[in-house]
Amino acid sequence: MHIIELIRKKRDGGALEAEEIDWIIEHYTSGSIPDYQMAALLMSIYLKGMDAHETSSLTLAMARSGEQLDVWRVVTPVVDKHSTGGVGDKVTLVVGPLVAACGVAVGKMTGRGLGHTGGTVDKLESIAGFRTELTREEFLAILQQHQLVLAGQSTELAPADGKIYALRDVTGTIESIPLIAASIMSKKIAIGASHLLLDVKFGSGAFMKTVEQARALAEAMVEIGRNAGMYTVAAITAMEQPLGRAVGNALEVAEALAILRGEGPADVSELCYHEAVELLLMTGKVPNEAAAEKRVRQAIQSGEAVAKMAAVVAAQGGDARMVERPELLPSAPIKQMIFAPESGYITHIDAERIGLISMELGAGRFKKGDPIDHRTGLLLQAKIGDWLKVGDPLVEVHARNTEEIALLKERLLHCYRWSEIPVVPLPLIHAIIRP
Amino acid sequence: MHIIELIRKKRDGGALEAEEIDWIIEHYTSGSIPDYQMAALLMSIYLKGMDAHETSSLTLAMARSGEQLDVWRVVTPVVDKHSTGGVGDKVTLVVGPLVAACGVAVGKMTGRGLGHTGGTVDKLESIAGFRTELTREEFLAILQQHQLVLAGQSTELAPADGKIYALRDVTGTIESIPLIAASIMSKKIAIGASHLLLDVKFGSGAFMKTVEQARALAEAMVEIGRNAGMYTVAAITAMEQPLGRAVGNALEVAEALAILRGEGPADVSELCYHEAVELLLMTGKVPNEAAAEKRVRQAIQSGEAVAKMAAVVAAQGGDARMVERPELLPSAPIKQMIFAPESGYITHIDAERIGLISMELGAGRFKKGDPIDHRTGLLLQAKIGDWLKVGDPLVEVHARNTEEIALLKERLLHCYRWSEIPVVPLPLIHAIIRP
Repeated sequence: MHIIELIRKKRDGGALEAEEIDWIIEHYTSGSIPDYQMAALLMSIYLKGMDAHETSSLTLAMARSGEQLDVWRVVTPVVDKHSTGGVGDKVTLVVGPLVAACGVAVGKMTGRGLGHTGGTVDKLESIAGFRTELTREEFLAILQQHQLVLAGQSTELAPADGKIYALRDVTGTIESIPLIAASIMSKKIAIGASHLLLDVKFGSGAFMKTVEQARALAEAMVEIGRNAGMYTVAAITAMEQPLGRAVGNALEVAEALAILRGEGPADVSELCYHEAVELLLMTGKVPNEAAAEKRVRQAIQSGEAVAKMAAVVAAQGGDARMVERPELLPSAPIKQMIFAPESGYITHIDAERIGLISMELGAGRFKKGDPIDHRTGLLLQAKIGDWLKVGDPLVEVHARNTEEIALLKERLLHCYRWSEIPVVPLPLIHAIIRP
Repeated sequence: MHIIELIRKKRDGGALEAEEIDWIIEHYTSGSIPDYQMAALLMSIYLKGMDAHETSSLTLAMARSGEQLDVWRVVTPVVDKHSTGGVGDKVTLVVGPLVAACGVAVGKMTGRGLGHTGGTVDKLESIAGFRTELTREEFLAILQQHQLVLAGQSTELAPADGKIYALRDVTGTIESIPLIAASIMSKKIAIGASHLLLDVKFGSGAFMKTVEQARALAEAMVEIGRNAGMYTVAAITAMEQPLGRAVGNALEVAEALAILRGEGPADVSELCYHEAVELLLMTGKVPNEAAAEKRVRQAIQSGEAVAKMAAVVAAQGGDARMVERPELLPSAPIKQMIFAPESGYITHIDAERIGLISMELGAGRFKKGDPIDHRTGLLLQAKIGDWLKVGDPLVEVHARNTEEIALLKERLLHCYRWSEIPVVPLPLIHAIIRP
């Protein structure tokens, strides 16, 4: 095989064979294919696409490029859950303990935030002492003992993905459905859960701006899951406005804990419960949807869900008291309410800009390795469809100082649009893609 | 400006501005844009194309990336001539001295052979002592004194082209009309002749396999010439069979010298004379075509053309006796005639395979830097349209030993196709593209 021939084949719209893709990934991971040849191949893939067979082959080759965790060897079934990311997306923090409390093991590795969307690892690190860097042995031991583990992404898993992602990031080849699907799924396959629930978001606050893009990505990933023998379901969900009311790390942890107690905002709570129900059904742990809903409600009302979170926080070195008493979580020195500048129905809250403003308040990072401030962010007091009169509370800004708030206030108000006519927000769940 | 944004712009089918292209070439030449980003951009250009304005901007940016020779400062007019390369293409060796003998200066830098097509520098080095590596000062002085100079390509000129070409070679981005046109024309513009005649070949022995590709390339280059203020004409010529009868370095020099004496094979002689006439007309040195033809004939018959070649060979350190007495040129130890295996009309001589066989005999190189044997090659005894009876001489092989001939003989015979019905070869000149 010769890399130039393979680049030419893809450039001319041909389909690469599984053995050819294996060979490319092996030699790129080892360094014998240089970045400039991989860059030319990635641009060819970007512009010419990959069929389902190629995408699955690429995913499996990347999954096998390093260590494989094989969590199914210690617990079975074991579920994994992944969101493509959005603003105020704390669903993983809820669904993990909730499903584990219902008796289904959840082994989850998750990322840090970059740009306008947050990362679950950053949010978890709001809890004093919580360790997300776990060894393989720790990960498996905590999973086995508590049916739940919430760790950062190991660089030992799917190293080809890390190397290819870094190259895509600097060569204009990020926004490719097969490459995105392979990147996400290769890490999931390397972990080795038996069941996977994907939350593919679309809208202004999501990576996929349209529902068509989200559907294409969801279908590609469900297909990869089928080919890899991992039971995969994808929910396509709306990200037209921030999810829930809290945006920012400690603020979102507090909201997640409220949801686990049955005291969270309706929109995000429903999405979390729905995902938990879906996972229980997927694993066959319950006979039907009604039984699944009953089991989930019971885990909330009995306090089992919060207790599961507290146990895992303790197991991972965190201060479990913060789970019982969220007021102990780190809190910003300045909290300033912004009020509605006019009366009317809120028709639009620009999720991407809200995410960027939260980032500028310190809650996110502009580039890899930037430090973040766990205390800062925004608490939305109203959502799309709510009627406010001028002077009503609109959004509470949690900041390090008042100057930052003064600088951002105008832009924050520009995230909102108003109307005299009532509006109804999009339903959160747009579609479910099953294998 | 940011390279990732520019890659994305081209990837999405946008047109790059002149300032953006200047910026890219400047920063790629200096090394601040890495190969992997340039590779992604080149693949985007390959797949999305470039319009005439972009192609001209790219060419000028590459031409300005290093030293510029500005030959028009020492002689004017000064013409340049370029062939896209074919098998048995010794036209430059004839047209250079012929046009110079007619009083129009020819300043030519030329390349080495790679793959199945030969290079003029390699051919010239068949002449003992001939130096093709000239300093800028030598190049200009010989041009001024003799109205002719035949040098190797300077790496000081258009260094961006050298760097980009090397990258294209290993990233599957060679066969792109705008990139090929910019590569050729950037070097021509850096030399700075006032007039340029291009010979764009199509057919099995050429880089462009179809006449449509050749026409697109010719038109792109004529357009670049117009935008750069260089009077450029392109001849689209057939390369369905080797040009003339000689293939191989010293063999082709001997044939070129025969043409300069008016004793060469008809097909290639006519092409050479036609190109010389075109150049005389382009520069306005003669009032009309009849006068140009007369002047060219006179230069041949009077011996001025051969004398010009001898003078330049001497000026560049070569043994001018070899020009007067071609039998002094290096000669292969083994010469073996291959005979016609059947009777009939020759309908087809596969130029690319003939070129490859000549290369395997030692006349060409498989990779850059390989040594070559100036003595070896093939002398075709018959061309398309000739009628031969079985046992007639078909091709004389000039080799280092008989074993090599035995190994190649079958493949050589497979280059020919025969018919009982007479055939007429394509006219060599298919079209002329003028600005």
